[in-house]
Amino acid sequence: MGGPAFCALADWGTSNFRLWLVDYDGNVLGERESDQGLSAVTDGRFETVLESHLTALGAAGNIGVVAAGMVGARSGWREAAYAETPTLLTDLHAHAVSPAAARPVYILPGLCQKTTGAFDVMRGEETQLAGAVASGLTDGVFCLPGTHAKWAELFGGRVMRFQTVMTGELFSLIGRQSILRLSIDAGSHTLPDDPVFEAAVEEAFDDGFSLPASLFSIRAASLLSQPKPGDAAARLSGLLIGAEVAGVRSYLSAAGPIHLVGSSALNPLYAKALLLAGKTTAVLDGGELVRKGLLSAAHKLFPSSQSEVVS
Amino acid sequence: MGGPAFCALADWGTSNFRLWLVDYDGNVLGERESDQGLSAVTDGRFETVLESHLTALGAAGNIGVVAAGMVGARSGWREAAYAETPTLLTDLHAHAVSPAAARPVYILPGLCQKTTGAFDVMRGEETQLAGAVASGLTDGVFCLPGTHAKWAELFGGRVMRFQTVMTGELFSLIGRQSILRLSIDAGSHTLPDDPVFEAAVEEAFDDGFSLPASLFSIRAASLLSQPKPGDAAARLSGLLIGAEVAGVRSYLSAAGPIHLVGSSALNPLYAKALLLAGKTTAVLDGGELVRKGLLSAAHKLFPSSQSEVVS
Repeated sequence: MGGPAFCALADWGTSNFRLWLVDYDGNVLGERESDQGLSAVTDGRFETVLESHLTALGAAGNIGVVAAGMVGARSGWREAAYAETPTLLTDLHAHAVSPAAARPVYILPGLCQKTTGAFDVMRGEETQLAGAVASGLTDGVFCLPGTHAKWAELFGGRVMRFQTVMTGELFSLIGRQSILRLSIDAGSHTLPDDPVFEAAVEEAFDDGFSLPASLFSIRAASLLSQPKPGDAAARLSGLLIGAEVAGVRSYLSAAGPIHLVGSSALNPLYAKALLLAGKTTAVLDGGELVRKGLLSAAHKLFPSSQSEVVS
Repeated sequence: MGGPAFCALADWGTSNFRLWLVDYDGNVLGERESDQGLSAVTDGRFETVLESHLTALGAAGNIGVVAAGMVGARSGWREAAYAETPTLLTDLHAHAVSPAAARPVYILPGLCQKTTGAFDVMRGEETQLAGAVASGLTDGVFCLPGTHAKWAELFGGRVMRFQTVMTGELFSLIGRQSILRLSIDAGSHTLPDDPVFEAAVEEAFDDGFSLPASLFSIRAASLLSQPKPGDAAARLSGLLIGAEVAGVRSYLSAAGPIHLVGSSALNPLYAKALLLAGKTTAVLDGGELVRKGLLSAAHKLFPSSQSEVVS
């Protein structure tokens, strides 16, 4: 059932807030989730929001909190400057900052890349990667699908390089707001075995593929032929995920499966696209990873707590 | 100064309406322009809109009208079914339709492509291409930059194949609504000699370039470095136009310059991108082309008018 409360762990992004009260071993004693992400917090009332959820969980006033995500951005509670690649993920706690608060609160840094690849940043995903390292996955390639998909290569527990691909945001903008919205069924759900999806992925792998030059054919097809409902969405999804995989091809040469950390809707599509690129995949639970990454930092930030707890 | 009024020519698109009263030789006797495109015409009051502008020009009730553009779409005044490639551009009039109206009105068809390339459609640009043919440009490659850029290859006055590239729409969606909006200066105007633009075009020409994988670096650069104002817009513009040119590379092998039919803002950027791809360009005036294309059809649709005029 778990021991006494050790600390609280917060995954605090732009549009979502998740909080777990855990014991020293990470057993979850209580959990909260809300849409009080950064964009919903007004007048900098971060502490008020956090305390309301801690109170709901019955967390004592001396319980410490470790948070990760956009809460540490310039526009967040307090800026936690990016740690720069190559970054040892077991050292995130060393770059944590503490906002002014009644209880101990630490915010973990995001990562930035200046020299190991194109300019890039992440906030939140590094803590999931730290959770993977805490689970023993110190080497390999990780793919975190989403609004801004992240790819990262780990070696010896370090992020050697990473890349953001705006696949989810492009799917949403193009599918809902461009001329293609007239051809795309709003509620359609693409399946990985859909031959339209597979063909679009393969098309995007071709030498000479150009996303802007391929998109309008989706609209024209719906004017000139009778595509099945869902075909347009499947094709857009396949072109975008295919273009993503083609764009990170240098990550695919690493040995071992790609570790996929996405939603139950996206993981199968990425797994199929990666299979078509010759890679196997292994799915990890993103919520579990972020808890493990936060807990790993908490053990270092609150070192005396264990002795207190076990005394 | 021009002879007596021969007919009126209308370029009637989704968001714009242009009308010219011309004599038999195409000399402009009067001109109207408004934002009464399709999306502003309510309850199908196309004839009312048209007549109000004809009245303003003092056009007699027996003056005929030839129109092109989205006014012939399914959602327009009356649908003019697409003519299919390869299409002889001097034959557009043969596919014209007449809506019910008090005076003679003809709407020219758009073009569709089913077998000479990927599914594609155009409405309005084919009349500009017909104008080029009427000017003696019967062969070569035409690039019409815009919201939906069109590329077309002409041979013997026929459109052999064409391709739509959603460059303008993507620039607007990504620049104004994606996360990149936070990095892009709203009013910035990219110049063709901007080294940031040139470098982005060259980047998009690279084998293995992937647009979704390259975009986020624009955001990251503005967080991690001090780009000059306008750099982000120049880079986005270069990546998109570069990706467009790379996507239509099969059009670039034709002999002769690429005929550019765009705005004064876009033409120089396309000319530079095409120069970097090894092609020269020749700029044509789009308004003049559409008038010539419409007039050429009018000469065939109103054959008796000349004799009336000259008698």
